[in-house]
Amino acid sequence: METLKIVGGWIVTQNHNREILKADILVEDGKIASIGEVGQADNMIDASGCVIIPGLINLHTHISMTLMRGIADDVHLDDFLKRTFEVDARRTREDVRLGSELGAIEMLKGGTTSFLDLYYFQDEIAKAVETSGMRGFLGWAVLDEQFTTQKGNPVDNAASFIAEHKGKDRIYPLPAPQGVYVCGEETLRRTQELATKEDTLTHMHLSETRPEVYEHQKKTGKRPVHWLDDIGFLSDRLIAAHCGWVTINEVRAIAQKGARVAHCPVSNMKLATGGVAPLPEMFDNNVIVGLGTDGSSSNNGLDMFGEMKTCALLHKAHRWDATVLPAQKVLDMATIDGARALKMDLELGSIEAGKKADLAIIDLRAANTTPSVAENLISHLVYSCQAGNVRDVLVDGKLIMQGRNIRMLDEKAVLEEAQKVGEELIRG
Amino acid sequence: METLKIVGGWIVTQNHNREILKADILVEDGKIASIGEVGQADNMIDASGCVIIPGLINLHTHISMTLMRGIADDVHLDDFLKRTFEVDARRTREDVRLGSELGAIEMLKGGTTSFLDLYYFQDEIAKAVETSGMRGFLGWAVLDEQFTTQKGNPVDNAASFIAEHKGKDRIYPLPAPQGVYVCGEETLRRTQELATKEDTLTHMHLSETRPEVYEHQKKTGKRPVHWLDDIGFLSDRLIAAHCGWVTINEVRAIAQKGARVAHCPVSNMKLATGGVAPLPEMFDNNVIVGLGTDGSSSNNGLDMFGEMKTCALLHKAHRWDATVLPAQKVLDMATIDGARALKMDLELGSIEAGKKADLAIIDLRAANTTPSVAENLISHLVYSCQAGNVRDVLVDGKLIMQGRNIRMLDEKAVLEEAQKVGEELIRG
Repeated sequence: METLKIVGGWIVTQNHNREILKADILVEDGKIASIGEVGQADNMIDASGCVIIPGLINLHTHISMTLMRGIADDVHLDDFLKRTFEVDARRTREDVRLGSELGAIEMLKGGTTSFLDLYYFQDEIAKAVETSGMRGFLGWAVLDEQFTTQKGNPVDNAASFIAEHKGKDRIYPLPAPQGVYVCGEETLRRTQELATKEDTLTHMHLSETRPEVYEHQKKTGKRPVHWLDDIGFLSDRLIAAHCGWVTINEVRAIAQKGARVAHCPVSNMKLATGGVAPLPEMFDNNVIVGLGTDGSSSNNGLDMFGEMKTCALLHKAHRWDATVLPAQKVLDMATIDGARALKMDLELGSIEAGKKADLAIIDLRAANTTPSVAENLISHLVYSCQAGNVRDVLVDGKLIMQGRNIRMLDEKAVLEEAQKVGEELIRG
Repeated sequence: METLKIVGGWIVTQNHNREILKADILVEDGKIASIGEVGQADNMIDASGCVIIPGLINLHTHISMTLMRGIADDVHLDDFLKRTFEVDARRTREDVRLGSELGAIEMLKGGTTSFLDLYYFQDEIAKAVETSGMRGFLGWAVLDEQFTTQKGNPVDNAASFIAEHKGKDRIYPLPAPQGVYVCGEETLRRTQELATKEDTLTHMHLSETRPEVYEHQKKTGKRPVHWLDDIGFLSDRLIAAHCGWVTINEVRAIAQKGARVAHCPVSNMKLATGGVAPLPEMFDNNVIVGLGTDGSSSNNGLDMFGEMKTCALLHKAHRWDATVLPAQKVLDMATIDGARALKMDLELGSIEAGKKADLAIIDLRAANTTPSVAENLISHLVYSCQAGNVRDVLVDGKLIMQGRNIRMLDEKAVLEEAQKVGEELIRG
């Protein structure tokens, strides 16, 4: 396989010591072979004036809903769900693939290389992972049969999806219960059995809204996290999205069982869910927390730079303390902590020899990132950079965006098709 | 003068009925001559696939601090101010001009055509307004002599600045008291006299932080807004920045005197000032509120798209109500309400025949704004667009950014100089 070197840039390694280096990177067989002064290589990327970061990890999204951008804003949650489900019900398999390709392009343009998804028709989303060159952790949505429009039993569907896609390049299938409000004990037990048998992660919405928590408590006598703990679903396989309405005892239970959290500040704020995930207490208890955009109907985009900035702002404002959640920690959430959440930190999340070469190259020679020096690079990444500053993206050492041009998908064709199908979907 | 027509785009007019039109715009003598089917023109801009909006109005900033981006993050306000003043004290007149040119480029790249500034050396900032082609409302910083490093008396300096720059193209000079913590009654009375004599606006930081309010109350027995009312400074000339710590009675006083508010959500959140400007109550009392980024040391950028999104998110989260501050109202704050705050709504803030042709053209054929239809344009502008989506910018009918290329300033030269000088400033 051809070798590649990336020369002349700043490297924000996100390694254990969070080193920032002025060095070159040698990429071989899809991996980072060495960092420092590297020798000859078949190909070269000039990263002068740029900063190289680990590809960002979007730890919670519904990628195919990108086609449903802006369909239900500024309304109460019930109206939001009603409108979203109404449009969603009209979608075909083909629409799910198309929305996923649109979402993949949007994420690549913003330096995101990996995402964790929760949706049905993950086999269609897997096609977009293949065609875009991204890395997808694909959670097949699991619900009790009475609540789903899926044909057959959702756990069985998840099992088939996993069996079919396990081991494929850049695809990591898993079962993903929608939430305690549509998943009974039997469904969750079967999901856990499936995940154990196949040795996969699980992913689930958890304690996103106040009604979700209090209705569950009324029904079962337990808050959701404690109830999941009792039935054996709270485990080190689980990445729980949101967790805005958890008590300190629930945080301790999450920590004790080694579950991780996908924090989605923009979506929580836009839907006005009220609860703010208690990040300082999660960190005090060594809970690993990554960052997710959620879907484009509640964000309304898949931009991890915006998500990082909003994350830092929200917690400072919420605690009346500007020292809460410094930029370095926020960048960790979007990189190495996301990788740890996915149990992929030996392969992803930092720029170190031996890891997969999933990288984003950001050009700092722009008005919104000038002046830039080593001392303010982390600040710039969190507070000043935008998707538009990302120049190149590599996954498995392969250049899948170059000079903002998407190299695998036909961007123009996808956008034109998405515009046409999206119009029809929105207008019904 | 040559005529220009802009054809094929959607127009978000921001007129009284907030109409969205598929129509062409004729520009003549720097003004919008007509909207609809327009005839021949000397020049043409093809806006197919684009949306045309009134140029955004940044109602509170310190443009020249763009050179100090990222110098003091994630620290308590006292440390922030100490570090900021320390760097600021080393700046030359030339640095202020350079920082302002850098800031102008950043704002143009994000569709902002007008800004309201508070700083010293406004004569240098005026040069950047001239060279960039932007529209600047330039507030010369006024403080009691004992608190300032300005040579001579700041009110006299403001008077000289106003006398020298009044009536110049795209420059609107005014006096701008720093805040009640450094401006005594005499200084504010003299400032008000100056503004009255010259018939200018006034601009001031007001009730940004809790200590500011309670220390003033301890000293004078009055909360800042009521005290300003008593001494005659609270008037319809005033645009007050922040107002995060105001009571409902202070909101009523602001309304009664016709003062306006420049809301700066990102800066307030990042500095963790705690108070959230009570926008719903301000609107109930018919207070006009615009939107500002504040300076780049507390934001850390001049991006009005990010500011709009954060504004919408903050208030929804703060009130646990997703219907608070819908996208249309947020866009109003950044356009027509900003113009009303500046008393320029007969000339700026909407796309209507007779108004100045200050326009931004945004290309929607991008992954992060697809699909787009008339029904979701306002949503996209607030929740999905980024600076990078802005293609062209006009001020007074003159194309000052075209295809993201800055046409008046030499962008490359400014960035290189800013990088060099910024490095020296940061490293001290």
